[in-house]
Amino acid sequence: MTNPIITAFDRSPDGGRGLARDTRVRWALEEVGQPYDVQPMTVEALKQPAHLARNPFGQIPTFQTGDLTLFESGGIILHIALHHPGLLPADDDARSRAIMWMFAAVNSVEPAILELFNARMLEGDKSWAAERVPIVMERARKPLRQLAAHLGDDEWLDGAFTAGDLMMVSVLLRFRPAGLLDEFPTLAAYVARGEARPAYRRAYDAQHAFNTRSES
Amino acid sequence: MTNPIITAFDRSPDGGRGLARDTRVRWALEEVGQPYDVQPMTVEALKQPAHLARNPFGQIPTFQTGDLTLFESGGIILHIALHHPGLLPADDDARSRAIMWMFAAVNSVEPAILELFNARMLEGDKSWAAERVPIVMERARKPLRQLAAHLGDDEWLDGAFTAGDLMMVSVLLRFRPAGLLDEFPTLAAYVARGEARPAYRRAYDAQHAFNTRSES
Repeated sequence: MTNPIITAFDRSPDGGRGLARDTRVRWALEEVGQPYDVQPMTVEALKQPAHLARNPFGQIPTFQTGDLTLFESGGIILHIALHHPGLLPADDDARSRAIMWMFAAVNSVEPAILELFNARMLEGDKSWAAERVPIVMERARKPLRQLAAHLGDDEWLDGAFTAGDLMMVSVLLRFRPAGLLDEFPTLAAYVARGEARPAYRRAYDAQHAFNTRSES
Repeated sequence: MTNPIITAFDRSPDGGRGLARDTRVRWALEEVGQPYDVQPMTVEALKQPAHLARNPFGQIPTFQTGDLTLFESGGIILHIALHHPGLLPADDDARSRAIMWMFAAVNSVEPAILELFNARMLEGDKSWAAERVPIVMERARKPLRQLAAHLGDDEWLDGAFTAGDLMMVSVLLRFRPAGLLDEFPTLAAYVARGEARPAYRRAYDAQHAFNTRSES
């Protein structure tokens, strides 16, 4: 069996802090013990037909195994979770809830931080940036406040660790550089539990080594 | 067997144009032939503990069947698709791609229209609104352009109609009021094919009748 191949930035814009979306796929593969290979992609290569045939949105990560090509981190991770033990509960209702949390992470939480990225990176030079960024930050606090109220002191979102936690922790990590994660100690502790998992450590270390390698 | 219960706005802010997220869940239930009941929720009731226990983000739709309570339209629709025939292909690789398209709809396409909603509805009175809204609209065209290039003249995203198309069409419909959908004839035709499905018609008609009923 050949290993599945994922794509990742040749050099992640975050310099290897683990915030690019390949890290969450690496984490899922590490949780289930599936070795993988990595194909580095330059920003230019992401726009080429060969990559757009894999992902029409021109992003990383993609995932190739046998005749199957997937893009979109949620789709890739759920594929991994449905084909290996370890990321979804055996109980059918609990499985549906774990999958629900995956969607909640990418649709109810992640858009808030994407909007903040846009406010800072795409509109940071606009006349309204100084007044508007705090407004967008306050908006981004709303789902965090709601999630923190729900989680309370629970270890994970719904019993044992699942792909839903993997995705939620991965999304929450993106709020940290703006200082928003640490405003919610409940969520910061939850994310720290995710980061402490050996599979996360392996994934983080692998992407860090990849993004800081000396050969081009 | 009692019917599953979904929640929907007591009165949708869109006045019954089918853009609230209960419509996509109704559509999935209609595709698989599963009758359902609807519990109307006022905006005030969405903030109450009874509803936050169902959905910590205080939104509709939720879905209750037996002991299972779900929120998040993607999670609900995938639950329906995994438990009834009709929304996912039999071939395993094609199933993974259909699920991937569900995630692509909510994570690679929907955030662009959510940002435009925010620009208009939450920041419409700001000094920067007039200059900024066209910028956000242009940003929202990017995933539409990419999706149109991928779809070409194909009927659906990947062979036969799947839950991936159901979700993508539902998300694309939200771009129509801003005039963005009709700028892309390929996508407008794709959405029209979705709207022409009898199950979509039934779902649309049901939510429209619900939102325009005379009793409160």
